Amino acid sequence: MEFSASDIAALLKGEIDGDKNVKVSNVSKIEEGEKGTLAFLANPKYENFIYESKASIILVNKSFVPRKKINATLIKVEDAYKAFARLLEYYVQAKNLIKTGIEQPSYIDQTAIVGENIYLGAFAYIGKNVKIGNNVKIYPQVYIGDNVVIGDESIFYSGCKIYSDTKIGNRCIIHSGAVIGSDGFGFAPQDDGSYKKIEQIGNVILEDDVDIGANTTIDCGTMGSTIIRKGVKLDNLIQIAHNCEIGDNTVMAGLVGLAGSTKVGKNCKFAGQVGLAGHLIIGDNVQIGAQSGVSKSVAGDQIVLGSPAIPVKDALKMYTILRNLPKLRDEVIQLQKEIKELKKGE
Amino acid sequence: MEFSASDIAALLKGEIDGDKNVKVSNVSKIEEGEKGTLAFLANPKYENFIYESKASIILVNKSFVPRKKINATLIKVEDAYKAFARLLEYYVQAKNLIKTGIEQPSYIDQTAIVGENIYLGAFAYIGKNVKIGNNVKIYPQVYIGDNVVIGDESIFYSGCKIYSDTKIGNRCIIHSGAVIGSDGFGFAPQDDGSYKKIEQIGNVILEDDVDIGANTTIDCGTMGSTIIRKGVKLDNLIQIAHNCEIGDNTVMAGLVGLAGSTKVGKNCKFAGQVGLAGHLIIGDNVQIGAQSGVSKSVAGDQIVLGSPAIPVKDALKMYTILRNLPKLRDEVIQLQKEIKELKKGE
Amino acid sequence: MEFSASDIAALLKGEIDGDKNVKVSNVSKIEEGEKGTLAFLANPKYENFIYESKASIILVNKSFVPRKKINATLIKVEDAYKAFARLLEYYVQAKNLIKTGIEQPSYIDQTAIVGENIYLGAFAYIGKNVKIGNNVKIYPQVYIGDNVVIGDESIFYSGCKIYSDTKIGNRCIIHSGAVIGSDGFGFAPQDDGSYKKIEQIGNVILEDDVDIGANTTIDCGTMGSTIIRKGVKLDNLIQIAHNCEIGDNTVMAGLVGLAGSTKVGKNCKFAGQVGLAGHLIIGDNVQIGAQSGVSKSVAGDQIVLGSPAIPVKDALKMYTILRNLPKLRDEVIQLQKEIKELKKGE
Repeated sequence: MEFSASDIAALLKGEIDGDKNVKVSNVSKIEEGEKGTLAFLANPKYENFIYESKASIILVNKSFVPRKKINATLIKVEDAYKAFARLLEYYVQAKNLIKTGIEQPSYIDQTAIVGENIYLGAFAYIGKNVKIGNNVKIYPQVYIGDNVVIGDESIFYSGCKIYSDTKIGNRCIIHSGAVIGSDGFGFAPQDDGSYKKIEQIGNVILEDDVDIGANTTIDCGTMGSTIIRKGVKLDNLIQIAHNCEIGDNTVMAGLVGLAGSTKVGKNCKFAGQVGLAGHLIIGDNVQIGAQSGVSKSVAGDQIVLGSPAIPVKDALKMYTILRNLPKLRDEVIQLQKEIKELKKGE
Repeated sequence: MEFSASDIAALLKGEIDGDKNVKVSNVSKIEEGEKGTLAFLANPKYENFIYESKASIILVNKSFVPRKKINATLIKVEDAYKAFARLLEYYVQAKNLIKTGIEQPSYIDQTAIVGENIYLGAFAYIGKNVKIGNNVKIYPQVYIGDNVVIGDESIFYSGCKIYSDTKIGNRCIIHSGAVIGSDGFGFAPQDDGSYKKIEQIGNVILEDDVDIGANTTIDCGTMGSTIIRKGVKLDNLIQIAHNCEIGDNTVMAGLVGLAGSTKVGKNCKFAGQVGLAGHLIIGDNVQIGAQSGVSKSVAGDQIVLGSPAIPVKDALKMYTILRNLPKLRDEVIQLQKEIKELKKGE
Repeated sequence: MEFSASDIAALLKGEIDGDKNVKVSNVSKIEEGEKGTLAFLANPKYENFIYESKASIILVNKSFVPRKKINATLIKVEDAYKAFARLLEYYVQAKNLIKTGIEQPSYIDQTAIVGENIYLGAFAYIGKNVKIGNNVKIYPQVYIGDNVVIGDESIFYSGCKIYSDTKIGNRCIIHSGAVIGSDGFGFAPQDDGSYKKIEQIGNVILEDDVDIGANTTIDCGTMGSTIIRKGVKLDNLIQIAHNCEIGDNTVMAGLVGLAGSTKVGKNCKFAGQVGLAGHLIIGDNVQIGAQSGVSKSVAGDQIVLGSPAIPVKDALKMYTILRNLPKLRDEVIQLQKEIKELKKGE
């Protein structure tokens, strides 16, 4: 999509200084700007870049007074940063609006109920008794299993897989390759050393405004539900086991793994590659450092780090001493020598 | 699916105490039971919950004598726990039985041979010379590459990908997004720093009763096979590299990674996020603690922990001392002072 | 595919010693050779295996003189190892050549431009304004989003997902389940504890000769691009976050995770399960040991290990002392006793 300086000025109620017909098809950072892109200058620290930027259009604050000649067309607005953010939202909305209608071939079971104004990509599959709200976007090759219920305005990117009986709220975003509702890892050991599968008959519930990253997996409850509360944001390649529950607005970075039945509170932050054992209770506002291994429950408002994880202050103190272990070792050897000397002296 | 108390009593040869027409569509734990669900009471420890449970039907042992009024309809059976487990199996079987026939559009190469009574979902793909046994279920958007051979009663959930030449036994379950038979990570370094791909012409063999979790990946052998033996259970997001071999009934939790050519024995248990280097030999009955990094072969019947992994007793002792390192550091400083004093005293 | 000894001898310009009609359909290692397979003997260390090998055909150097009777048909060539490697390449090429043409049903938007001699599998999807070069192979159920540009001879295995605006060079290989261009993990914290999605409008660029493993995920730039340079090889289940850049010929093993905006140099080697924090700069020729956690930038030509990662020499020294910590602890206790004695003695 291409936009002219006059299109953008009209949208942002800005004032043009330069060529009103110049066109852009992308955005850039002011320090990297190339021809055909739009950048913005908000922080005066970056002012020097504006005189050399190759961006075709640059948003600036009304109050900005250039010290030298600028090649780009300027659009003057009240607040350049906010105007830029608004522009991005318009852009993404416009891009999404293109996606509409039902592409063929696709598969909708005749018992499914589908809302208004949805996009259904080719090779997408909607199972029996599925209920889908309005303005939902389902990209190509998505699978929606039987009895799934989906709210309004949720987006399912190409190839994500939603097992039967999953419930998904409004404004959720599920990225490609994510798997929601696969069987929990439950097997009963038999006398001969083999395992018998324990039937997994629960489901997954995603409340409103949940984002699920690419190739993340969330297992269904063995019985009952695995629950991802309102506003939770999960990055890519995360494993959430059966019957876990994650509280409102908790965020987790890539490659985190939670074992079964662990409950995580609200507003927590887990860094990448963190692992949690099963059946733990993690309080609200807990932060866990990267690669930590959590084997015990953690009370609210704690920051923990390490494998096994301990309070972050203790962990950092321990790392400092660890790094100086060879020195400590040498000191002990020195002490041994001195004591030997002292004993001789006796 | 809805079932009445009389349906269920008939199935379990139980006796009804209450409304025989009440219906349930799901199961619940007795402490969480809601209207329209069936729960069970086996462990007397949970007896108090039965008087407050909102479950519509509760399975109880014949021997159970209530101390107060119970709202739910009771079904009395010989062994409430076993009856419940049997009920779950019936339920899952009934659910699976719905899945049958060939949905359109799907793709079956004319050289493929497909057994009786299979389910083939829409947009599933069956390549050249594929041989599939009886009662196999292939969900929508599954890919079965050329020359793949599949036994009876295996289940392939939506969107799993089976590369050409893979061999899969009976009663295997492959979850969504799992990839079986992708190229091993083999590249020959060239003089200019670049890498030349080493052609990967082996395959993957899954023996009978193997379960593969969502988004788990198993690479083919460079030459020969990557072999997953009978009864192995792999959780989600696991990486098994080329030419690995995993012995009977070994289980691995999520996010485990095995490098190339490592052989794992029978009846092993690996916890989450464990990593194994390549070309190792791990004996039978080995247990590896969460997040351990195994860089050397491990003899049978060992339990190891840590990164690098060491015997679990040593690891736990080390962790205890680690946690007390600041104290040890202080003690050494104290000793240094005392010796200084002693020397002065000399 | 089956080949006779005379087929293979003709291809390799070799000389047959034995049955020219014997046929093989696979290759094997000489020590594991079975009927119907072809093996090779290059290293004299393995000579003993040739007398017992069950392989039907064995490639040998012209100079090889057997000491005993050999059951297999021999094909004598100048250099048995090189001949074998060449044979593998022929084999894989022959296998790939089978894949050609457009299978139905597939979906090609009418605005897409597709090169000559491509393979497009059933249920594959090509979006608006896509440009695809010559000799590209797109397996079933692949998704190519709008405006994607792809060079010549690249291969997309079944079910990989390429988001809109991605640019992919020549001779790239993308394995099943890989996701290229999913949204970066960017959310602005709000006053009420919730998060607002930051629109991700950048893209991913894969230069020439890039290999991406199964179920690996690469997020698009928030603005600008996530860039994977020429010759990079990524294994399975790797997470590359928004705006990362990976230099020429760098290789990473499975389950590695990079946080946002980290730049990695050329010719680096990362072992399995390594994690890197965001906004780091890693120099050229850096090697990172398995399960390391890198929280600071690393200058070129370094080898680091551990979580947190430190120079490998220091890490190995530290591990040695760690393993002897109980001994160190005992030594300090012993010193305390001795000093007590000395003090008494004063």
